[in-house]
Amino acid sequence: MQTNHTKTSVLPSGGGAMLLDPADTLVLLLDHQSGLFQTVRDIEVADLRRNVEVIARLCTLLDIPVITTASEPAGTNGPLMPEIAEYAPHAVHVARKGEVNAWDNDDFVEAVRSRGRKTLVMAGVWTGVCVMFPALDARAAGYQVYAVMDASGDPSEMASRVSLARFVQGGVQPTTTNALLSELHRTWARPEAPELARLYGLVAPNYAAVAESYRRAQQAALDAGQ
Amino acid sequence: MQTNHTKTSVLPSGGGAMLLDPADTLVLLLDHQSGLFQTVRDIEVADLRRNVEVIARLCTLLDIPVITTASEPAGTNGPLMPEIAEYAPHAVHVARKGEVNAWDNDDFVEAVRSRGRKTLVMAGVWTGVCVMFPALDARAAGYQVYAVMDASGDPSEMASRVSLARFVQGGVQPTTTNALLSELHRTWARPEAPELARLYGLVAPNYAAVAESYRRAQQAALDAGQ
Amino acid sequence: MQTNHTKTSVLPSGGGAMLLDPADTLVLLLDHQSGLFQTVRDIEVADLRRNVEVIARLCTLLDIPVITTASEPAGTNGPLMPEIAEYAPHAVHVARKGEVNAWDNDDFVEAVRSRGRKTLVMAGVWTGVCVMFPALDARAAGYQVYAVMDASGDPSEMASRVSLARFVQGGVQPTTTNALLSELHRTWARPEAPELARLYGLVAPNYAAVAESYRRAQQAALDAGQ
Amino acid sequence: MQTNHTKTSVLPSGGGAMLLDPADTLVLLLDHQSGLFQTVRDIEVADLRRNVEVIARLCTLLDIPVITTASEPAGTNGPLMPEIAEYAPHAVHVARKGEVNAWDNDDFVEAVRSRGRKTLVMAGVWTGVCVMFPALDARAAGYQVYAVMDASGDPSEMASRVSLARFVQGGVQPTTTNALLSELHRTWARPEAPELARLYGLVAPNYAAVAESYRRAQQAALDAGQ
Amino acid sequence: MQTNHTKTSVLPSGGGAMLLDPADTLVLLLDHQSGLFQTVRDIEVADLRRNVEVIARLCTLLDIPVITTASEPAGTNGPLMPEIAEYAPHAVHVARKGEVNAWDNDDFVEAVRSRGRKTLVMAGVWTGVCVMFPALDARAAGYQVYAVMDASGDPSEMASRVSLARFVQGGVQPTTTNALLSELHRTWARPEAPELARLYGLVAPNYAAVAESYRRAQQAALDAGQ
Amino acid sequence: MQTNHTKTSVLPSGGGAMLLDPADTLVLLLDHQSGLFQTVRDIEVADLRRNVEVIARLCTLLDIPVITTASEPAGTNGPLMPEIAEYAPHAVHVARKGEVNAWDNDDFVEAVRSRGRKTLVMAGVWTGVCVMFPALDARAAGYQVYAVMDASGDPSEMASRVSLARFVQGGVQPTTTNALLSELHRTWARPEAPELARLYGLVAPNYAAVAESYRRAQQAALDAGQ
Amino acid sequence: MQTNHTKTSVLPSGGGAMLLDPADTLVLLLDHQSGLFQTVRDIEVADLRRNVEVIARLCTLLDIPVITTASEPAGTNGPLMPEIAEYAPHAVHVARKGEVNAWDNDDFVEAVRSRGRKTLVMAGVWTGVCVMFPALDARAAGYQVYAVMDASGDPSEMASRVSLARFVQGGVQPTTTNALLSELHRTWARPEAPELARLYGLVAPNYAAVAESYRRAQQAALDAGQ
Amino acid sequence: MQTNHTKTSVLPSGGGAMLLDPADTLVLLLDHQSGLFQTVRDIEVADLRRNVEVIARLCTLLDIPVITTASEPAGTNGPLMPEIAEYAPHAVHVARKGEVNAWDNDDFVEAVRSRGRKTLVMAGVWTGVCVMFPALDARAAGYQVYAVMDASGDPSEMASRVSLARFVQGGVQPTTTNALLSELHRTWARPEAPELARLYGLVAPNYAAVAESYRRAQQAALDAGQ
Repeated sequence: MQTNHTKTSVLPSGGGAMLLDPADTLVLLLDHQSGLFQTVRDIEVADLRRNVEVIARLCTLLDIPVITTASEPAGTNGPLMPEIAEYAPHAVHVARKGEVNAWDNDDFVEAVRSRGRKTLVMAGVWTGVCVMFPALDARAAGYQVYAVMDASGDPSEMASRVSLARFVQGGVQPTTTNALLSELHRTWARPEAPELARLYGLVAPNYAAVAESYRRAQQAALDAGQ
Repeated sequence: MQTNHTKTSVLPSGGGAMLLDPADTLVLLLDHQSGLFQTVRDIEVADLRRNVEVIARLCTLLDIPVITTASEPAGTNGPLMPEIAEYAPHAVHVARKGEVNAWDNDDFVEAVRSRGRKTLVMAGVWTGVCVMFPALDARAAGYQVYAVMDASGDPSEMASRVSLARFVQGGVQPTTTNALLSELHRTWARPEAPELARLYGLVAPNYAAVAESYRRAQQAALDAGQ
Repeated sequence: MQTNHTKTSVLPSGGGAMLLDPADTLVLLLDHQSGLFQTVRDIEVADLRRNVEVIARLCTLLDIPVITTASEPAGTNGPLMPEIAEYAPHAVHVARKGEVNAWDNDDFVEAVRSRGRKTLVMAGVWTGVCVMFPALDARAAGYQVYAVMDASGDPSEMASRVSLARFVQGGVQPTTTNALLSELHRTWARPEAPELARLYGLVAPNYAAVAESYRRAQQAALDAGQ
Repeated sequence: MQTNHTKTSVLPSGGGAMLLDPADTLVLLLDHQSGLFQTVRDIEVADLRRNVEVIARLCTLLDIPVITTASEPAGTNGPLMPEIAEYAPHAVHVARKGEVNAWDNDDFVEAVRSRGRKTLVMAGVWTGVCVMFPALDARAAGYQVYAVMDASGDPSEMASRVSLARFVQGGVQPTTTNALLSELHRTWARPEAPELARLYGLVAPNYAAVAESYRRAQQAALDAGQ
Repeated sequence: MQTNHTKTSVLPSGGGAMLLDPADTLVLLLDHQSGLFQTVRDIEVADLRRNVEVIARLCTLLDIPVITTASEPAGTNGPLMPEIAEYAPHAVHVARKGEVNAWDNDDFVEAVRSRGRKTLVMAGVWTGVCVMFPALDARAAGYQVYAVMDASGDPSEMASRVSLARFVQGGVQPTTTNALLSELHRTWARPEAPELARLYGLVAPNYAAVAESYRRAQQAALDAGQ
Repeated sequence: MQTNHTKTSVLPSGGGAMLLDPADTLVLLLDHQSGLFQTVRDIEVADLRRNVEVIARLCTLLDIPVITTASEPAGTNGPLMPEIAEYAPHAVHVARKGEVNAWDNDDFVEAVRSRGRKTLVMAGVWTGVCVMFPALDARAAGYQVYAVMDASGDPSEMASRVSLARFVQGGVQPTTTNALLSELHRTWARPEAPELARLYGLVAPNYAAVAESYRRAQQAALDAGQ
Repeated sequence: MQTNHTKTSVLPSGGGAMLLDPADTLVLLLDHQSGLFQTVRDIEVADLRRNVEVIARLCTLLDIPVITTASEPAGTNGPLMPEIAEYAPHAVHVARKGEVNAWDNDDFVEAVRSRGRKTLVMAGVWTGVCVMFPALDARAAGYQVYAVMDASGDPSEMASRVSLARFVQGGVQPTTTNALLSELHRTWARPEAPELARLYGLVAPNYAAVAESYRRAQQAALDAGQ
Repeated sequence: MQTNHTKTSVLPSGGGAMLLDPADTLVLLLDHQSGLFQTVRDIEVADLRRNVEVIARLCTLLDIPVITTASEPAGTNGPLMPEIAEYAPHAVHVARKGEVNAWDNDDFVEAVRSRGRKTLVMAGVWTGVCVMFPALDARAAGYQVYAVMDASGDPSEMASRVSLARFVQGGVQPTTTNALLSELHRTWARPEAPELARLYGLVAPNYAAVAESYRRAQQAALDAGQ
């Protein structure tokens, strides 16, 4: 099963032929709910939430549409993490009617179709369920699909490895928050560069410390140079 | 090697085109025996048995046929875990005549064929032997096959990674108990929802604690509201 | 700081001089609550609950008194795990008035004192807080104290190692559910032996499989011998 | 070497005889610098910084004095993490003159002595150096000393285990941010309870999700009850 | 790249269509040398050697031809482990002339070709070099190839994961000693069954203890029955 | 609690003042039974058995007395591992009457006392039970006690850490098979040196490969020198 | 997607049909910068740098062209590690204009094209970004691509597993420094053998110790033989 | 057993009362031999050797005497690592006569005594043997002893934990190379500061990258400021 449509690169170098096209990308955030978070065992909850926050901020910064959905938010699974609405206020929420697989829900699929974008970036909890099922169905419906593994969560390390293998087997491209950020970022020669730099500090906290050291070293050099 | 037949979805959304069809599914539980359990090193025995119990309960709840088999249960390998018969009393047992590979046994293959279902969900100990061999043979015989990694067990972490890779290479879809439960569950808008909720508490024990907290919080709200 | 009073052994061998005396032992189960369980990271919740269940069953079997307490059970911390009341119906519950440290609560300390026993076996969540604080205070009050590490839980592996070190430093004896069971069991030549054997199968699930294999092997020998 | 002075408890129960007395406590934050952070390998930097932030907020909330210091902040070691000054604006900073061991610096020791408190809670990077050296010297000078292991950092797991053992050997009490928070918190029956609850959500991120679920469950109960 | 030729099963059930045919199998043991063993980090040397011993014994038991080779055995890489010659005295040794890749050596390839078997089972140290290179070349030459991961060794866990992925990518089937033993064993209804049972005890040491318990339990039953 | 009697060294250097005196040492091997082995999780069973074998061989080589015992060997716990009797035929076996703690059994304690040796080296399964209880009681009875951690086994990593801490707290010296071998070995200038060298190859399998390389390198040098 | 062009082997054995052809190989070292190093979590920085050093030395030894590039070396990401220029002085550096993906930069792609080689070996930090993007684009442009996983680095273990899977999915061959060294080395019967042996000692430090032992053993044999 | 003599601090602050006095310190490097290195499993050999190199360089830099010794360097254990003589040419070597415990050798003990220093810093392979035995004997002889855990090596993680516990129990202070470096360093206000900074880059390789970033950032600031 082929996973990637070679795109006509807009660059003279031919660069990006195999990379995400932001103008064709729609982000789907699936069931990031406080109750489900307690069962996640392949990533720490603090890291998972920070990665989802990065995606929300990134979509706002680069004007990429976002759809959220939740399974039974008034029930045991708990409410959606509030950071999504806070950092991606343009996200559209689609309520479901009890379906585990978001792709079983007409409203959700219609919300996706109506955007007219053919590349879907998905993340959610659980990876092997709430991301896997719509990812496989979206592949069958002709979409190109990316699954952001570390903005998603599975109930065991073994489940995580199984999800990764099943994505690859099903023609879904696995990725990470860091790679997604870089793949949409593409160049430091753009006005959003400072905000993007801050997002790297969230997704890789040592990067934030690198930046702090950098600024202090420059200050010291300037102080000494006076 | 193609792993998945795209099914004609019965839903307007097209959902489930790539997912398990319960009406076409047969579950095979292979050699879950007390002696073999002692050699398992990629999952704790308590977790393995609880996952098998979940599958047994799930099949009973959703009327999915089950076939069990064991290799030399009067010998060193030990008896089949009794929870299967307890929670899936409808399971049919097929005795083997010493074959390591269940698919080498005529009675077993005939028992499978006679059900007329083309999707086989397999679990067993060892994953790389008792599941792998019939899984590969069933693929060759035209079946669609799922291997439930965490209701199975291998004698080392390395063996587990090898089994996962070999399944994918051979066109067998790896899955987990949690994903299987969700894939057969499909919607909370069904009468079995409460029993299904309890199964999630078994497969992900933190989920049970989430549910306990939920009920207590609601009680507290109602107590306060009086 | 001396941790152990050498007891006058009742056995001719002198055995047990340094072991728990069941007649002088009181078990304290502290804050095993569903909300707090979600934060535990040094033991899986299923294992933790099963160990607490073993202690509850053991105390019932051997007539050892139990006191339970919980911090804010109507609030975020959640309700006490129901298995304690189920398997140790003789346990006495002491409600607290918001104190984090159970030893700060008069009713609790009075409940302990009134039993007249000088050996306290404690378990709870979190190990480094809900067990540590009353354990240290009870040492200061002259009690001999044991902390059951795997019937307790801490929010990280590092926290768990710190708690273990601080217990030893403070003269509290660390132990495990398995050791506690064995230390109170003492001999197979007693009427409760079969029930005790079942508890080993809970605390070490491979032991249950060993027993299943054993019974089946004997059956096979008898079948063959006929 | 005795580590703990038994205090005269102010509670009728005798509770807290062995616990921290907030009125006698001084917090020392040592060399939490961006360059040194890059070498830490026993805790993730994001977790380390969040724990230090919790201590800073806690000291502000409960009016506990804080002293910070840094080794060569204009040099390679990098600037102090800014969260300390942000969340504990009352912290006093003492510059050093190149000493690795803060206790070698007169100004620092004088700053400690002048507070008149005999219980020192220390955290820093590296644990085995910047915390260890002043901790051992402070013990020799008659102070009671706590080392907060997870608000500190060491360059390897092995180094972390060595530091823990050497603290215990030297009569320094190891603790964690979570235990420190709880030990100073002591009771929910105080006006700062809501702020303290938020700190638990920082130190144990799953706790924050528990609280979100709790509030949503209560809302659902009230909605249903209308 | 297709990895498996569907064989015409000799069994009525169709079993074994995808499994190893012992009559078409040749085992290649590549560079199991004492010097190279010191660099292995994805499996303990004792386990690696025991697994190679199992393969040697198995080939002797089932009359499967074996070829060994070594790279510079008089040099730093060290001598071949002596257990191979001890337990598979029928193994043919092919000396190389300095080639890292055994398939670069005419004598070796000729030794393989002359056997007339089309299925090659390979193991060696390092997995990603001494097994990988001839495995890929043998695939290009039309052979069906299996790589026994745990009778081989790589210098890091990461290297091991890379080797596994590259094997799958190159159409080489990964397997383990345990799976190889079972795949050649096929049925307990054969005269070699007792010897095969002992090999399981080597490859999975807990299995040996299961057998010891089994025999003792049967003895106890017979003793009691007298 | 003091752990070590300073001995009068027999060497001019004063060496060995704190080390084991072979002439005063008695080895106790407690409950190394096949059924209990299945529950061990802090060491692989193959390694555990090989370490016990090393101790058995070592005691035979150096004429150190050994006492074995087993708890209910005709029952679920299974038979004693046969390697002990094979490699230490001089070991004396003491049957127990159901006691979990060997020190509760008169015959066992009498067997120990009658040897007249004051240093006891203990190993067994479980570490925290079958070794811990007699170790603590033997300390109370005035013996100097060593616990060989890796010739013993506990049902979890956490249990293993707890046992280590409790041994230290109780004045029992923890050690390993490797250290015991070296501590009794003491000098290469003794006739048993070649046999001792082989034991190092068992306790540290890489050492055996080092020796193989060494011999081959010397052969190569001699071959080249001819 | 096919990954490997079968080459016409120049050896009579047919060996190397699937291996790297040094004469067609170009090495690309991407963004090995001191600031980015701090974020790497799937390999230790010392190991990563040593592996890059090995590749630099290897290319110099075997006359393989190298291109380096860096993203914003005057900014936070930091300078390129100096060992590359030190050990591969023939490496050509291409400055970028802010592009994250080197393949987006005309100068870089032109530098690659002008070499006329069709096999690209890439390494860099981050693996999933700085290696992944040009690797996928180079595949689309018709190159055969290898990614050296352990001369690259990703910010988490999960990211590393995702990168490995995505490489395989995209037709990029994953490899390691050790395998690359061996694949270019090919035979000990060449003049560079002694220098190559030293490189193995860098890539697998235990190998260096093996060589030290070997030389000393030979010396001892010769000394004894005198 | 008291481990530390409180020294009279030479500083007004009282700092260093509990720290190493360089003028009273003697470093003993025990059996760092290439053959023994192959058995080390609690630290990577590259890290172990780099740490020993740091100690050698440090002693040369600060004029601290060093004694080396080796057990049977012409035999299987292999030669001493050459870096010690290279970086600490002032080290005195004492040959042994087959003794495992260096303290059993008169020449060695005399070499120690003749230095007249009462503080011994020891490192070696194996930690639990070659360091432990002389460390315990030196304690008995009245020396203050430090064991550098990560410049030493043990054959398993369990052995490493046991050694750490036994050191603490025996009054030996465990430390690390990093702590030793810092404890002897004491202040940046000394002429050796630049060389010391380089040693931190060896002992914590991320620190070297921090320094590289620092210098580059300062250069960039100066370039921009021109």
